[in-house]
Amino acid sequence: MGRILTIGIAGGTGSGKTTITRRLQHQFENRVCTLYHDNYYRAHDGLTMEERAKLNYDEPAAFETDLLVRHLEALRRGESVDGPVYDYTVHNRSKQRQRIDPAPVVLVEGILILADSELCRSLDIRVFVDADADVRILRRIVRDVRDRGRSLESVVNQYLTTVKPMHELYVEPSRRKADIIIPEGGQNEVAVELLIRRIQAHLQEEG
Amino acid sequence: MGRILTIGIAGGTGSGKTTITRRLQHQFENRVCTLYHDNYYRAHDGLTMEERAKLNYDEPAAFETDLLVRHLEALRRGESVDGPVYDYTVHNRSKQRQRIDPAPVVLVEGILILADSELCRSLDIRVFVDADADVRILRRIVRDVRDRGRSLESVVNQYLTTVKPMHELYVEPSRRKADIIIPEGGQNEVAVELLIRRIQAHLQEEG
Repeated sequence: MGRILTIGIAGGTGSGKTTITRRLQHQFENRVCTLYHDNYYRAHDGLTMEERAKLNYDEPAAFETDLLVRHLEALRRGESVDGPVYDYTVHNRSKQRQRIDPAPVVLVEGILILADSELCRSLDIRVFVDADADVRILRRIVRDVRDRGRSLESVVNQYLTTVKPMHELYVEPSRRKADIIIPEGGQNEVAVELLIRRIQAHLQEEG
Repeated sequence: MGRILTIGIAGGTGSGKTTITRRLQHQFENRVCTLYHDNYYRAHDGLTMEERAKLNYDEPAAFETDLLVRHLEALRRGESVDGPVYDYTVHNRSKQRQRIDPAPVVLVEGILILADSELCRSLDIRVFVDADADVRILRRIVRDVRDRGRSLESVVNQYLTTVKPMHELYVEPSRRKADIIIPEGGQNEVAVELLIRRIQAHLQEEG
């Protein structure tokens, strides 16, 4: 396998970054693999469920980012990795592992991936997906209440106490590290096509 | 000639949009042609030099945008156009004309091109080039004083009385029309390569 292209897809909660990531996965299937920063949330086996629910999940320290960087380097060397899996229902790392095989293009997705200078440096293309804060919180509410079984009250409380202040403290400043900013995330066909064309050019040259 | 790809390159004064435009021109030579919105500043032959110097050049009404749109449509039909030429030293349209031949890719550059809904609609890819306001005014000072023979005092005065308020009124809101936002304009190699790859794909398919 030739040189690997690494693409970071960052952006606040509900910005549409997962939609863009899925569009690229769907387009290129096994020619891309993806590392989700969320799966690298630290394990907290020593804490109770109640204690874990109170942790701040929106600051860089919540993630085991050095492990993600090591996995990214392993994929770059052509090695498979056993990635961690995070279980949102118990606020803890699952006992499962997920095998990730190397591919010519590695996507790295997460709200804070550009906030870590080592991870940021290891990305060839740094994308920041953007949307208005009101649109983002609406998407988050729908996702957390409907898909993750959280109460509306807990989502609102978490948003106001940690998600929003941490967004302003860490996510928003990390936008300055981006090579391109994509407004209106997942529905932005023109921007998705730019990324698709860039990946196609890479696959033609290195595939 | 096949389908034409139109790319709008917008952004505030000193954002780096001209540098990006030149990079694309240099890369693709006669396979791209460029319409500069600045060349479509309205003619003011009936006014004195002093009167012309006092006009607001940073609002949409300063431009003959409908003429640019007609020229863009002519290029799209494969016809050459005789474009106007603007002379900054006299704040007026020059007597010269500039022939622009059609090409598979048409670039449209200017601070306010996304603020005009008809022009905006006719663009396939809408780029907004961005940079901090302090960096932008520094670039503008260097350009206007050194390259256009303006006094420092006149540049500062024009900036504070029209450029900055019009930026906030028209340019900044037009960012919402962009498909992608490019920070750090001309020095952003990753973003320039994305545009180059996208154009190459178009040329391969339509060329």
